[in-house]
Amino acid sequence: MTMSTQAMLSATGGTHRLDALLNARSVAVVGASNDPGKISGRPIAYMLARGYTGEIYPVNPGRQEVQGLRCYPSVGAIGKPVDLAIIGTAAAHVEAAVREGIASGVKAFVIFSSGFAELNDAGRALQERLTQLAQEHGVAIVGPNCLGIANASTGLIATFTTALESHVLRQGRFSLVSQSGALGAYWMDIVLRSGIGFSHWITTGNECNVDAAEAIDFLVSDPNTEVIGLYLEDVRRTEAFRLALDRAARAGKPVIAIKAGRSSAGAAAAASHTGALAGDDALYDACLSQHGALRVESLTEMMDAARLLLHKATPLGPKLAVMTVSGGAGVLIADACEPRGLELPALRPDVKDALVPVLPSFVHPSNPLDITGNVLQDTPMIGRAMRCLAEDKDTHAIVLFIGMMHSIADAFVQALSQARKEVHCPIVVIWVGALESSIQALEAVGIPVFLDIPQATTAMSRCLWAATAQKAIATRPLAPALVAHGDGGDMATTLSEWDGKQLLSSQTAVTIPQGWLLQEGAPLPVKLPFPLVAKLQSPRLLHKSDAGGVILRIQSVEALQAAAQRLFDLGRELELPVQGVLVEQMLPFDHELLLGLRRDARFGPVLTIARGGVEAELDPDVVNLLLPASQTDIAQAIGRLRCAKLLHGFRGKAGADIGKLSSRIAELCSWFTARSLREVEINPFAIRGDDAWALDALITPQAA
Amino acid sequence: MTMSTQAMLSATGGTHRLDALLNARSVAVVGASNDPGKISGRPIAYMLARGYTGEIYPVNPGRQEVQGLRCYPSVGAIGKPVDLAIIGTAAAHVEAAVREGIASGVKAFVIFSSGFAELNDAGRALQERLTQLAQEHGVAIVGPNCLGIANASTGLIATFTTALESHVLRQGRFSLVSQSGALGAYWMDIVLRSGIGFSHWITTGNECNVDAAEAIDFLVSDPNTEVIGLYLEDVRRTEAFRLALDRAARAGKPVIAIKAGRSSAGAAAAASHTGALAGDDALYDACLSQHGALRVESLTEMMDAARLLLHKATPLGPKLAVMTVSGGAGVLIADACEPRGLELPALRPDVKDALVPVLPSFVHPSNPLDITGNVLQDTPMIGRAMRCLAEDKDTHAIVLFIGMMHSIADAFVQALSQARKEVHCPIVVIWVGALESSIQALEAVGIPVFLDIPQATTAMSRCLWAATAQKAIATRPLAPALVAHGDGGDMATTLSEWDGKQLLSSQTAVTIPQGWLLQEGAPLPVKLPFPLVAKLQSPRLLHKSDAGGVILRIQSVEALQAAAQRLFDLGRELELPVQGVLVEQMLPFDHELLLGLRRDARFGPVLTIARGGVEAELDPDVVNLLLPASQTDIAQAIGRLRCAKLLHGFRGKAGADIGKLSSRIAELCSWFTARSLREVEINPFAIRGDDAWALDALITPQAA
Repeated sequence: MTMSTQAMLSATGGTHRLDALLNARSVAVVGASNDPGKISGRPIAYMLARGYTGEIYPVNPGRQEVQGLRCYPSVGAIGKPVDLAIIGTAAAHVEAAVREGIASGVKAFVIFSSGFAELNDAGRALQERLTQLAQEHGVAIVGPNCLGIANASTGLIATFTTALESHVLRQGRFSLVSQSGALGAYWMDIVLRSGIGFSHWITTGNECNVDAAEAIDFLVSDPNTEVIGLYLEDVRRTEAFRLALDRAARAGKPVIAIKAGRSSAGAAAAASHTGALAGDDALYDACLSQHGALRVESLTEMMDAARLLLHKATPLGPKLAVMTVSGGAGVLIADACEPRGLELPALRPDVKDALVPVLPSFVHPSNPLDITGNVLQDTPMIGRAMRCLAEDKDTHAIVLFIGMMHSIADAFVQALSQARKEVHCPIVVIWVGALESSIQALEAVGIPVFLDIPQATTAMSRCLWAATAQKAIATRPLAPALVAHGDGGDMATTLSEWDGKQLLSSQTAVTIPQGWLLQEGAPLPVKLPFPLVAKLQSPRLLHKSDAGGVILRIQSVEALQAAAQRLFDLGRELELPVQGVLVEQMLPFDHELLLGLRRDARFGPVLTIARGGVEAELDPDVVNLLLPASQTDIAQAIGRLRCAKLLHGFRGKAGADIGKLSSRIAELCSWFTARSLREVEINPFAIRGDDAWALDALITPQAA
Repeated sequence: MTMSTQAMLSATGGTHRLDALLNARSVAVVGASNDPGKISGRPIAYMLARGYTGEIYPVNPGRQEVQGLRCYPSVGAIGKPVDLAIIGTAAAHVEAAVREGIASGVKAFVIFSSGFAELNDAGRALQERLTQLAQEHGVAIVGPNCLGIANASTGLIATFTTALESHVLRQGRFSLVSQSGALGAYWMDIVLRSGIGFSHWITTGNECNVDAAEAIDFLVSDPNTEVIGLYLEDVRRTEAFRLALDRAARAGKPVIAIKAGRSSAGAAAAASHTGALAGDDALYDACLSQHGALRVESLTEMMDAARLLLHKATPLGPKLAVMTVSGGAGVLIADACEPRGLELPALRPDVKDALVPVLPSFVHPSNPLDITGNVLQDTPMIGRAMRCLAEDKDTHAIVLFIGMMHSIADAFVQALSQARKEVHCPIVVIWVGALESSIQALEAVGIPVFLDIPQATTAMSRCLWAATAQKAIATRPLAPALVAHGDGGDMATTLSEWDGKQLLSSQTAVTIPQGWLLQEGAPLPVKLPFPLVAKLQSPRLLHKSDAGGVILRIQSVEALQAAAQRLFDLGRELELPVQGVLVEQMLPFDHELLLGLRRDARFGPVLTIARGGVEAELDPDVVNLLLPASQTDIAQAIGRLRCAKLLHGFRGKAGADIGKLSSRIAELCSWFTARSLREVEINPFAIRGDDAWALDALITPQAA
């Protein structure tokens, strides 16, 4: 793992914009209170008790002293440099406090106060002035309506969360960025209670200035942070966010994200919670996974993944060697591995041979390996067996299952600590009923301990995914600047199929069937290639099939004439402005997809590939990719479709050349992003041998 | 909940065969040891320390006294009635010990010793003699190769598990039947550590006599048991097992089961672990779900479900009213509910109105309801809000999310305890960072506490399923005696399609297309209903399509003659014994299923319904039902197919009448079970309007 340039800069003096905030060496607390339970008293009490290494300056014109510290009448009166000012006053007084701080040279602010954009329009206006102030004066403002920040290495505690009340501040290599103060507090409570510890803790609140993207970017540069937790409700600067995730991947720092609002009900609640527009969950999913961030459902799952990552125990690949003290547990582990993409391969013959003298005579070397209760008499056998298993360089991790066995817990820990030094691959312990002391001792030597099987196997599977994704990201160029986002306006008009296909004919990635636009009563073209399809064309008729506007399998001139007449009659019946009847050759094809390209207001241009036809509506089979995406990205995304098996050729059906197909799609993406188009939907997008056809297309230009 | 007849019998004196075992009032320990760490010393030490209410008789010819108790030279020398004898001697001496015990009037035995069927053929023979002894003399034998049994209400501890070492024996309403001793021990450790407590604990080992089915049956009759845990590797007496599960359902006692061996690797490990034949996991799944047993993946998941069940807090239906102290948590709960089939319906207008005066002015009544940190100042508000939510009888449970808030934990507990008395529906608390004392206090009043969201929502969803399934089982007749199981022999021969269809024509549930068996060179029938399909018939050609043995869409006499000739030529080419060429009318149909009926060696007759065609092979969409199954069971099973939406009519395709379809299938099942058939596979099983057609059929009679 090499340090990124920026991380090195930070380690050698610090140039990140958020240094003055998150590594502040002096803090003013505006409206400082003597009461350590009050919002503007608690940070002082915390910092005093936890030994903050910087200077604390209480500011309150009504007091000489606060909690034993000299108190200043104003920030300006401090007379020494102040990195950070904490503001918890009523919303109406916040702007003045920030202005005063800026005038006195304060570089960063944490604003606890609520009553801003989350409340009403007046609050939104107040908040916008804070944004302007930050931009004009180059200061960093966290909040408003946030729970603040904390830095465990310096004892900087610019927060009033009660989560710090009952715990010792413990420095660690885990950091958090949270858009929710409450979730941030729960994270802090769990992280300190479980002895994991943290480096930086940042709740961003209303994000008037410092947002989640910038906070992640800072953590990438923080030499103490190795794993980044993220609680997300809404991303405002999508490109900065994506860039920050890419930088984390390059720095080898896994990001574990909870994104709230997956469900429809959840999305509605999110909108009312922070006033943020509800995001499209599928695109958040695409965004996080394209940039190697691991999405989990809960704090518990986040901690499980972090436990593995912080001990650098992510399996090097899917192949596990499993040792258990009970046969039943081995079966349960195998059961849990299979659906999670983890494997228990058969032992290599030489590994088996090596194990025979190590194991009790009645144990047959296999995977899972039941070392039986005999281990009670011979704990060093564990280390010997592990060394045999690790002889196979394809052993990607060794998993040891233990149940209780408290009487020999210390011997276990000793044997495992020794094995940890001698074995090349990660060791993961699942210990049902483990003693707290055993967990601490094992984790101190880099062996994570889980209390049951699904937690361990889920974490291993997820972290392996994240490691693979981050490695791939590290080898690709940083995403180039994205094309401008769509305007999101609703006024753009979708073109008729005929007009859309005329527009599409300026590209060559996708072929358009030869077609003729018939007018009522006009003579038919000669030499038509039967069988034909006839489709009524009107900019007001977008779902032609549903309205009976498509007639298939026309085999003769007479049938075509009749069909055209029926369609023109239909147009009159539906009172549509009719452009004509589009006649095209019906083409047989091997596979039917839906291909969508659109500009999302939040995420910019997005590619959607889905299975076509009735199947797609029955049970959607879809992948989304934020653009730009490479041909490889597209090929991999197609591979994630459930119908990928079909595309590879199945039961006599011809397979598609996924390489060529994804090249065509990549070309179409470039064509789309270079043009002022809001949406292109090709459905059916028909695959026939190496060719791809747009059998129907709906194109919506961007509003003028 | 009414007590079953047998449960009443048991409560009024006890007539269950396992009473002498599991409620033993006197225990002899054969080979009793003075050392409380030894296998035959530990049960005595445990019972002495935990105050067993019955008599303990150590038996050891070499000792006068064991652990302070008078020791007898033989069981016969005790001279008083002995309910249970514990035997932990070497395998070779076990039979003699059992014989001596029987001769002395002992009614039940627990055999710890290993070295039986799990070891080798000689051990298997030893074990079979134990089985015979039990049957001849009507005694109950648990084991061999087991960890024994325990009864928390009498302090009967006939086990040497170390899981009891560090815990107080706590009586509870949860019981366990485990086919693995190790998993049983872990369960004991977790149950005692978490303060849940247990009633009976039964590890069945090699099951020479007492098996899991009988143990479950006992627990159904045990008045102290309300929830049954089950760890299963292999079921030997399928019908008794199914009956026991049905009895549990009727008694309203949920069964939570872990079945090991779901994966292919797991199944292999199971085979080597207990010497049991690996079961077909899909049929275990079908069996458990048809009988209302809840299948979980791990002990942790079992405890989560048990927590809800033991506090009778299973939601009454899917509709939850959610209250949180943080908006973000409400979103996460909504996210977690949706994929688990739980709903957060909008609040009824009158409930909203009632909430307004209860909530702080800035809180908008909604579901999820964010009561905000304001609750710190007004905990009784929680109870008032809950009463409003419970006003809607469609509120199936109230879920309250709390994060930390340790300073007001006692006030929370008080408010919730009061609310528990006043609210009709279950209350479930999710409390991140809950204090152990708060959990205990809330659970003491019947409010289960979970530490994170997915654990709670998963448990609610699963227990709701189990409650619904058990209710349905309680209203149906107990399953009648099943038809005899298949012989499992491999010698039966599958009939040709023609012969199979002749056999099928003895039933009327499924229609067979009119068909003619052509012989080479023979004249064609007149008036053939084109289009036709021609299929080569040979008992050695079962997969006709793959070999080119099917010609579709024949439109004329000439084409038929050519097709028949090609098929006869093919038969010669493949050197097949050719029966003829089957010619049938090609029928259009709306839906294509696969319908299978077979006799499984373990589970007896089984119905399989799957989506047909390529889709089925791409991504199986299948349900299994053990027979007998009612028309309703079949209709519900069809409803669980992913393609059920298609069957209901979708995008212009005609729907099938599921009621009539399932009646037809039920009739076919009766036809199958009444005949000596090993397997009937109808594929395609074509649905056309109200009709069901067997377009192809493979039938295998039972071996003679």
